[in-house]
Amino acid sequence: MRIAIDAHGGDHAPDAVVEGIRQAKEKWPDLKIILIGLKDMEDQLALDGVEFRPVTEKIEPEDKPTQAVRRKKDSSIVVGCQMVRKKEADAFISGGNTGALMAAGFFHVGRLKGVDRPALAPVFPTLNGKGILVLDVGANPEAKPEHLRQYATMGSIYAEKVLGFESPRVGLLNIGTEEGKGTELTREAYALIEKDLAARFVGNVEARDILEGPCEVLVCDGFTGNVLLKNTEGVAKAVFGRLKQELTANWMTKSMAALLKPRLKKFAQAMDYKEHGGAPLLGLKGPVIKAHGSSDARAFYNAIRQTRRFLQHDVISRMEEELS
Amino acid sequence: MRIAIDAHGGDHAPDAVVEGIRQAKEKWPDLKIILIGLKDMEDQLALDGVEFRPVTEKIEPEDKPTQAVRRKKDSSIVVGCQMVRKKEADAFISGGNTGALMAAGFFHVGRLKGVDRPALAPVFPTLNGKGILVLDVGANPEAKPEHLRQYATMGSIYAEKVLGFESPRVGLLNIGTEEGKGTELTREAYALIEKDLAARFVGNVEARDILEGPCEVLVCDGFTGNVLLKNTEGVAKAVFGRLKQELTANWMTKSMAALLKPRLKKFAQAMDYKEHGGAPLLGLKGPVIKAHGSSDARAFYNAIRQTRRFLQHDVISRMEEELS
Repeated sequence: MRIAIDAHGGDHAPDAVVEGIRQAKEKWPDLKIILIGLKDMEDQLALDGVEFRPVTEKIEPEDKPTQAVRRKKDSSIVVGCQMVRKKEADAFISGGNTGALMAAGFFHVGRLKGVDRPALAPVFPTLNGKGILVLDVGANPEAKPEHLRQYATMGSIYAEKVLGFESPRVGLLNIGTEEGKGTELTREAYALIEKDLAARFVGNVEARDILEGPCEVLVCDGFTGNVLLKNTEGVAKAVFGRLKQELTANWMTKSMAALLKPRLKKFAQAMDYKEHGGAPLLGLKGPVIKAHGSSDARAFYNAIRQTRRFLQHDVISRMEEELS
Repeated sequence: MRIAIDAHGGDHAPDAVVEGIRQAKEKWPDLKIILIGLKDMEDQLALDGVEFRPVTEKIEPEDKPTQAVRRKKDSSIVVGCQMVRKKEADAFISGGNTGALMAAGFFHVGRLKGVDRPALAPVFPTLNGKGILVLDVGANPEAKPEHLRQYATMGSIYAEKVLGFESPRVGLLNIGTEEGKGTELTREAYALIEKDLAARFVGNVEARDILEGPCEVLVCDGFTGNVLLKNTEGVAKAVFGRLKQELTANWMTKSMAALLKPRLKKFAQAMDYKEHGGAPLLGLKGPVIKAHGSSDARAFYNAIRQTRRFLQHDVISRMEEELS
């Protein structure tokens, strides 16, 4: 099992990446890691027992995805995806430019047989701490019913094998719970998914219920999923931010905040994406995992843990079997 | 100015409705209110100086909207909309079944010249307390670019005249900030709105930035808007709910919670839809206002206050002028 990792992806790269790998190597000493990084940073990125693959270019967060992938052929993102295709690596993890990673995955790793569009599938936090896999959150903004059907199957296999849910339930994001609600897309997708998954399909799920964990896999088009992801981040950040402001307003609230901290921290942790690893790009011929842009060492460690399970359970073959 | 109000809409009806009207009459003694309620509840609903319009039917929250509007012709929702069309009332407010109110508005009040689809336009809370008008949140799940252009104009007039924003800025909800992002719908709508509004159009707005108040009017298709609305409610409710749980876990946290309460309450109020009145259904020939289902007396009072401004500024004629 050889996992290629982008040294330069994310706000805290490369230090958080290197530290995450160090922790993973400590836990699984026989794990083979190939760290892809800028040639002139080789010394800084050196890690015992980790192979270094030098590159000469770097895709920046503000680069235009498709253009960057086309032009920066010797960047960590492009090289990582090519290594997966050439089977020089079994999987690739990056915390870099999401759009570029999706484009490079699509062009250089390639789609799995039976998959029309890959989907980006992060785990959203839920109040019960188990999380819910949401796909797609933006790989394919304009989805067709058939794409949503494929997401349901891929998400369901991933949730079972990698996230460890027994018979995961699948829901369809919609604006009402009754059948027939929503748009032409959701109505047609409903019929297709119901036919495929039968009892494991819980039907339509409304956005206000997501945090309660009404299912383990939630399917939607990439535009809506992306809005959902960013809105959840925005609202949670705003509420926590304002709360912090109120709790540190004066010496009295500050001393109370100190006492409350352990309790609030537990909650903040349950709501934290970092505990859930990265978001896989499902539907490609090999595992490509997007680590969150603000990933710290623990998040990279978790992304590696999750990628191990992805490979151990041979999720890709299972998806190909079910979809082709 | 005669405002018709549904006595039976919302979780706290009819008491919250009656109390909201009482408060409004106290503030504006010459305001004419027509309360539409079930005949056999006339005594309970009697209010000094308020006309009572008896009906024999009631649309329930769980009724199928279009069916209910067709069958229950003597319900408060259908009668209220018909009164607006016949000019027996200048506006109608209801906290009842949202789908039924939208259907009755569409069929019985009718569309304004130049409007293809009416839009439901609630005010979302923002951290600065000013709020942001979002439309559409579900009247028209499958929007076309031209609909979004009309929403931008209607929302902009409403935000200026009723919400009191001077030259309100208009944004387009999208999954990236650069022009060209998103779907065919958002790309085409972007061009149309930019042509119409010029400098007042701030371009694409991402969901994570909404609470910061990047603009005063935010335009989107009804499916996405509905998901956004319900997700915001769901996340805020979950975070506040969990916070309450942590704060009341034992005597120590309880005593701290008591001390923090005034501070947290101020914040909760800023985030509260009740302060912002109801959601107008824009694009109809007369004002129809949806009060939130969980409206209390204060929310109904605010919905009346807002409807007064709607009528005083002759918003409907202004929209007709701009759009036809």
